[in-house]
Amino acid sequence: MRNLVIIGGSDAGISAALRARELNPEITPTMIVADNFPNFSICGLPYYISHEVADWKNLAHRTKEDIENAGINVLLEHTAQSINTQSKQVTVADASGNLKILDYDKLVIGTGAVSMKPQLAGLDLPGVFFLRWVPESIAIDEFIKKQNPKTALIIGAGYIGMEMSEALSKRGLTVTVVEFLESVLPSVDVELGNKVRETLVKNGVSVHNTIAIESISKNGNRLIVKGSKGFEISTDMVLVSVGSVPNTGLGKSIGITTGIKGAFKVNLKMETNIPDVYAAGDCVETWHRIMQKYTYLPLGTVAHKQGRIAGENAVGGTSEFAGSLGTQSVKIFDTVVARTGLNDKEAAQGGFMPVSADFETWDHKLYYQPAEKIFIRVTADKKTRRILGAQMLGAYKTEISKRIDIFSAAIYHEVTMDGFSSYDLSYTPPLSSPWDPVQMAVHAIEKKCNPADS
Amino acid sequence: MRNLVIIGGSDAGISAALRARELNPEITPTMIVADNFPNFSICGLPYYISHEVADWKNLAHRTKEDIENAGINVLLEHTAQSINTQSKQVTVADASGNLKILDYDKLVIGTGAVSMKPQLAGLDLPGVFFLRWVPESIAIDEFIKKQNPKTALIIGAGYIGMEMSEALSKRGLTVTVVEFLESVLPSVDVELGNKVRETLVKNGVSVHNTIAIESISKNGNRLIVKGSKGFEISTDMVLVSVGSVPNTGLGKSIGITTGIKGAFKVNLKMETNIPDVYAAGDCVETWHRIMQKYTYLPLGTVAHKQGRIAGENAVGGTSEFAGSLGTQSVKIFDTVVARTGLNDKEAAQGGFMPVSADFETWDHKLYYQPAEKIFIRVTADKKTRRILGAQMLGAYKTEISKRIDIFSAAIYHEVTMDGFSSYDLSYTPPLSSPWDPVQMAVHAIEKKCNPADS
Repeated sequence: MRNLVIIGGSDAGISAALRARELNPEITPTMIVADNFPNFSICGLPYYISHEVADWKNLAHRTKEDIENAGINVLLEHTAQSINTQSKQVTVADASGNLKILDYDKLVIGTGAVSMKPQLAGLDLPGVFFLRWVPESIAIDEFIKKQNPKTALIIGAGYIGMEMSEALSKRGLTVTVVEFLESVLPSVDVELGNKVRETLVKNGVSVHNTIAIESISKNGNRLIVKGSKGFEISTDMVLVSVGSVPNTGLGKSIGITTGIKGAFKVNLKMETNIPDVYAAGDCVETWHRIMQKYTYLPLGTVAHKQGRIAGENAVGGTSEFAGSLGTQSVKIFDTVVARTGLNDKEAAQGGFMPVSADFETWDHKLYYQPAEKIFIRVTADKKTRRILGAQMLGAYKTEISKRIDIFSAAIYHEVTMDGFSSYDLSYTPPLSSPWDPVQMAVHAIEKKCNPADS
Repeated sequence: MRNLVIIGGSDAGISAALRARELNPEITPTMIVADNFPNFSICGLPYYISHEVADWKNLAHRTKEDIENAGINVLLEHTAQSINTQSKQVTVADASGNLKILDYDKLVIGTGAVSMKPQLAGLDLPGVFFLRWVPESIAIDEFIKKQNPKTALIIGAGYIGMEMSEALSKRGLTVTVVEFLESVLPSVDVELGNKVRETLVKNGVSVHNTIAIESISKNGNRLIVKGSKGFEISTDMVLVSVGSVPNTGLGKSIGITTGIKGAFKVNLKMETNIPDVYAAGDCVETWHRIMQKYTYLPLGTVAHKQGRIAGENAVGGTSEFAGSLGTQSVKIFDTVVARTGLNDKEAAQGGFMPVSADFETWDHKLYYQPAEKIFIRVTADKKTRRILGAQMLGAYKTEISKRIDIFSAAIYHEVTMDGFSSYDLSYTPPLSSPWDPVQMAVHAIEKKCNPADS
């Protein structure tokens, strides 16, 4: 093993490179990065657009120099053109089109995902944006500075749509969100989505659900967006955030098998079906630890873990991906929403007998003011009493995101309600209660499962 | 089973009563409470003294009416005088000394602890206080209001001493803390204690370590406190907070076996050696889940769990206490300190091969301002790679207390460093990093264990 080549310089690629070098300081991994922005926090882009982050350069997890100092060879503005699996070579082109050939012993593909482009007229019009990479966020920022738009329409109420509704509001735009499904933030249940909707409306954002957008057209300086049920709006700019699809063209060209949404199939070692070729991050299928099947979960946390495993195994390791629980959190204005594991519907699909309970309480002892209400929904399996999932919503800085992580650790270990109740969780009046709210929520679901408790 | 009698109306007693009634709505547990303050949050007393809590009545977890509405018979200002284990009767006296006899089928003793009184002249002087119960906090408040003290000396830098240094500072007193051991907050390692000391000093509190207090005397209106190494100070009031000892006189009179510090010996079902007599809370020895032996850990969280188990088993259950990890958190001015599991010294005593790593990082992505530094020390076993403990310190509202709980859940399940690294923890830039700081800290200790990583 001498040559480790990594295609892609975002979460998966950089994690693979760092881990490989950490375990084997003899090698210098080569990382091929299509743009000039290695190891950028794409999750941070909304905060650049909101101007909470003054300079987009601050969004880099590491600078090129940091990466090189860690012993990694970085090729910026290089794109991988082709891979020859017989000679084990990657052909790359620099910004001027000059070709170079890199030998590899092991190859890691972390080509990520691209924004999903819905079947919709008008996506190429000026003022219509997607948001996934640094150049797109710079373009949005420039547009706001130069065109001074007053209104924005966001198509899609997922994580990016939600964060951007706050970001554009903070830039002074009046924002409207349109979502095809029945509630915003469809990654959580409708009841939580409706609470998020309240937050949006309270902050001046208009929300339309169950509308399918059908077209975008131009009328003078305005964009006209039409949808189902007679929806029609005139706006200064449009952000399309309806999800992402794996970027797999190059890998397919060498015969890597694909599955859900066209993502690469990998085993738990992050190996593809092509010898010595690993893949990780938003371009691969992800093993779901509870469902015990593959899903598509393009998340930074997952990409970091998978990249680390690919890097470790590329230098001789035998590490296996433990699986994702779909843990996610997001801050929307002053509200934080988080989830882990399965909701009722997913649990039923997974063959469980789900039961859920809702619980609302204060984040810490009410006498220590100010305390804030937090809402918790816990889902468990009736038969085994195993906890399957949790969803939580509350004010920023009420430890929502790390409270969901107590559930995440618990679910990883397949804990029962009884075990969870035994956890020795910390308590001080300014931060919790003698039973933490997460345990009170589990007591609430225990009562639902035990007919003697009423 | 008809008569359940519970002696004590604090955390253990109330938890036992509630759980018993919840599981068996046919019975009406009788709870004997020595004072007029059932189910008070004694952890909240410092916040009453600081005047952050306006009315001490707000410190009740539940009012007498709440408890009665839950189906529990409450005898306030009643003290249990004696127990007859042959006839299965408890003799109680009301405030006027009138006696009453209560039959029991099952008895739960939750008589708690009392403040430890060091061997020291002058403890009875006016202006010298202990703090454990509501009347003591009212007395301290009255003293401050009437005597208008300018200075206070706190003997003992444990949790109560630390919280009271903040509380008395907030009331305008100049506070000095004296601790016998080499750092404040000795429940965490010296390095963390020293950071707490910085917080105290920054907030105007004077700190003296490795001083043994030897006497308190009166000189006019002032109290003179003398200690080792020539320590001598003149002050307006003194708080003695050097720990607590189990309150076990009544139980000993019926032959309940005692152990560490004189606490009742119980099994995991919270049964004492006397048939049909359970004990729980600050008056019993506590099983330590990692050490696999009994300790003395007078904590509200533990008392709630043990009381719940005693109540469940008193009505026919077979529940077992899973053991404590010694999880604790405390807010001291703007700093939160938390711990769970074992430190190096404890781990070595427990027969492990401990290794610890220190790690400092931001609580969330630095680009989303303001971010705060948090300090994490993780302890693991070299041989098994099992995580044994964690200590953490950072600013209030940086999710320190629930981050320690991720470790607590992990340690409950005897996770290894590798397993912990596999946890699917939540990430959004305003609240964390793609690897949460707790996982970065575990990566730091992994590197120490793996000579290949350097």
